[in-house]
Amino acid sequence: MLKTTVPRPSRWPDPLPQLLFLLRWLLLCTLVSVLAGTASAVFLVSLDWVTRYREAHPWLVLLLPVGGLLVGLMYQYFGQSVAKGNNQLLEEIHQPRDVIPLRMAPLVLLGTLLTHLVGGSAGREGTAVQMGGALADQLTKWLPRALRLRPRDRRLLLVAGISAGFASVFGTPLAGAVFGLEVFLMGRLRYDALLPSFLAAFGADWVTQAWGVGHTHYAIPVVPSFSPSTLAVTLAAGVLFSITARGFVACAHILVNAFKRFIAWPPLRPAVGGALLLAAAWLLSISAVPDITRYLGLGVPTIVAAFEAPLPWYAFGLKLLITSLTLGSGFKGGEVTPLFFIGAALGSALAWVLPLPVALLAGMGFVAVFAGAANTPLACILMGMELFGTGSVGYIALACVVAYLFSGHRGIYGAQVIGEAKH
Amino acid sequence: MLKTTVPRPSRWPDPLPQLLFLLRWLLLCTLVSVLAGTASAVFLVSLDWVTRYREAHPWLVLLLPVGGLLVGLMYQYFGQSVAKGNNQLLEEIHQPRDVIPLRMAPLVLLGTLLTHLVGGSAGREGTAVQMGGALADQLTKWLPRALRLRPRDRRLLLVAGISAGFASVFGTPLAGAVFGLEVFLMGRLRYDALLPSFLAAFGADWVTQAWGVGHTHYAIPVVPSFSPSTLAVTLAAGVLFSITARGFVACAHILVNAFKRFIAWPPLRPAVGGALLLAAAWLLSISAVPDITRYLGLGVPTIVAAFEAPLPWYAFGLKLLITSLTLGSGFKGGEVTPLFFIGAALGSALAWVLPLPVALLAGMGFVAVFAGAANTPLACILMGMELFGTGSVGYIALACVVAYLFSGHRGIYGAQVIGEAKH
Repeated sequence: MLKTTVPRPSRWPDPLPQLLFLLRWLLLCTLVSVLAGTASAVFLVSLDWVTRYREAHPWLVLLLPVGGLLVGLMYQYFGQSVAKGNNQLLEEIHQPRDVIPLRMAPLVLLGTLLTHLVGGSAGREGTAVQMGGALADQLTKWLPRALRLRPRDRRLLLVAGISAGFASVFGTPLAGAVFGLEVFLMGRLRYDALLPSFLAAFGADWVTQAWGVGHTHYAIPVVPSFSPSTLAVTLAAGVLFSITARGFVACAHILVNAFKRFIAWPPLRPAVGGALLLAAAWLLSISAVPDITRYLGLGVPTIVAAFEAPLPWYAFGLKLLITSLTLGSGFKGGEVTPLFFIGAALGSALAWVLPLPVALLAGMGFVAVFAGAANTPLACILMGMELFGTGSVGYIALACVVAYLFSGHRGIYGAQVIGEAKH
Repeated sequence: MLKTTVPRPSRWPDPLPQLLFLLRWLLLCTLVSVLAGTASAVFLVSLDWVTRYREAHPWLVLLLPVGGLLVGLMYQYFGQSVAKGNNQLLEEIHQPRDVIPLRMAPLVLLGTLLTHLVGGSAGREGTAVQMGGALADQLTKWLPRALRLRPRDRRLLLVAGISAGFASVFGTPLAGAVFGLEVFLMGRLRYDALLPSFLAAFGADWVTQAWGVGHTHYAIPVVPSFSPSTLAVTLAAGVLFSITARGFVACAHILVNAFKRFIAWPPLRPAVGGALLLAAAWLLSISAVPDITRYLGLGVPTIVAAFEAPLPWYAFGLKLLITSLTLGSGFKGGEVTPLFFIGAALGSALAWVLPLPVALLAGMGFVAVFAGAANTPLACILMGMELFGTGSVGYIALACVVAYLFSGHRGIYGAQVIGEAKH
């Protein structure tokens, strides 16, 4: 059951190969950190600008179909080789074929900014991870002989790039390091990329901060002490978070397939998706739903609000549908910030019925829905510690573990390989 | 390279089996938590009493040979079936044969208390982990039909017991949960025991606290911001920590073999070990070394002192030799608290030469030497966060990763299987 095909290394190897390994990866990860950290800084600053511009000019949502068409055309004529995005990185980790084209980085940056400019509901981690991974992978081409990159090194380099992108875009280096190790294999974690992922994650986060870019802070001020009843509530909430994660994965999957089936010409898909988003926003705004714009874009102000007072019960569902439509139709951006929104909104709404503080429930949902959808429980627990401190870690950890356990063997990353069944 | 033999589970399984899995493990882990948490509480309280009694009656160290003989006789006549200790638990996880005899728990408890009563240098985690593992494994016998324990469940139960013991004895539930998942396989982490290990770790920690038992606190008040020079210092310190971890593993290994080779009758080994310890203490006390008793027993006051001002450079080496002699000759107890001492003392002494605050270096050594010796880097990083807060996590994490990377493919647990080469 536990047999492995790994050759048993010599028991007392020289320290020299380890020292060379350390120095090689110190150099490589410094380059990855500068590239990915700078890319994340540029992205975060421009995303902030785009978001504020859109909020100041609400009519821009009328351009949703046009923005979708532009994103679609861009990928149709320049981006076919990089259209698979995050999954392309994971596939290369599993079965290395070709170096990721450099154009993945600018295309996903432009595509995401365009998506946010017209009010599409998307996130950041996909963009940062693709920029980090694509930039890191260029080192395979740029530095082939000087540093003697073995084929195996390329896998570690991709993991380092993913870790660097994730760490720097959210300001959570520990979560970023473990995310890179955890994301490509469900149910197992391999340690061979431990040093590259940690060096790149902490380095890239440092570079982004050195550019003067900060991150949003969340607080869980009140944490009740553990008791059998709070444990039961936490496990129940974890199950609800996992059902929501499953719902998101299924919804996005169904929409992707529907768009592919009914619209043959790819650039038309996000254009139609944009039109549907616009129609949905209009329908919702003439119905009873107040302030529909909070569900567009990143939605960080609403995530912050979820920690302060219970949100309405339908908020998480609306965001789930709008995000699935945005990403399923072919707009660009990540899934993770919308998943934070969905989870925090659901947790926040659960404070109406569950006897735990609203900020704690929002924080649990914030990371647990993501843990269930991405199948990365350890990264999500670490993220909870980095964002909310260590006081709430028991609740956060159990919610993430249950959300992971119940979310099924499918996730937002189709190229994730099942290494171990969940139960 | 990444092929696995795990059958691909159905993509959308019913939630029913997961719910049953959750409820079954909630019940099992409640039992494990109560058993292991209570055992840890009894152990910590009695250990505290024994330590204070020994400190009040320094002549007790004269009984080191007698104490050794008693421990040896106890295991010779009652404990041959449980003499392999921690490694026995790991072997059962890898190749399940028989239920761990219940006597492992009282024997290791008595053996450890006796070791500490006469001033042997040993730790706590081995004792807590063996009590937790042995007690948890009894559920295999006690509840065979009612809960339908499958053979695979026993493996998860042992992991839960290990996690519960570790979590409750150190008051670090997150580190305990990950330690149980991480310890039996070097270079890989499997997630199938995720829920049991987390439930048991948090539950047992809660039970121990509910018994009114507290844990020592450590503080790292000043943490400089990252820079290329602090990074370089951190990596260099990590290499030194790993060399120390290697030294400990090698020293313990050599001594175990030497005692086995030169002393045929097992009970005589700890008796001779005790006599050698006594001789060493006498030799050191007539030489220039002040306050030799600080190297006996757990040494928690010295660990606390290491955070406050730099310790002398030889402190870590003395503790390393005295602990190797104690455990290598057959006294009982864990390796981990001495490893905390060795690491914190080395880190503290490095403050004489390295430009980082003494508390930070002590904290880095505290967890990093253990990370290198036990090959459990993630558990050690989490322990650092739980003990010292999130402010120092970058330094702690990189020191642990480097210490793990450089410590070779051998560790304090001989039954640990290599799942993946380190580099």
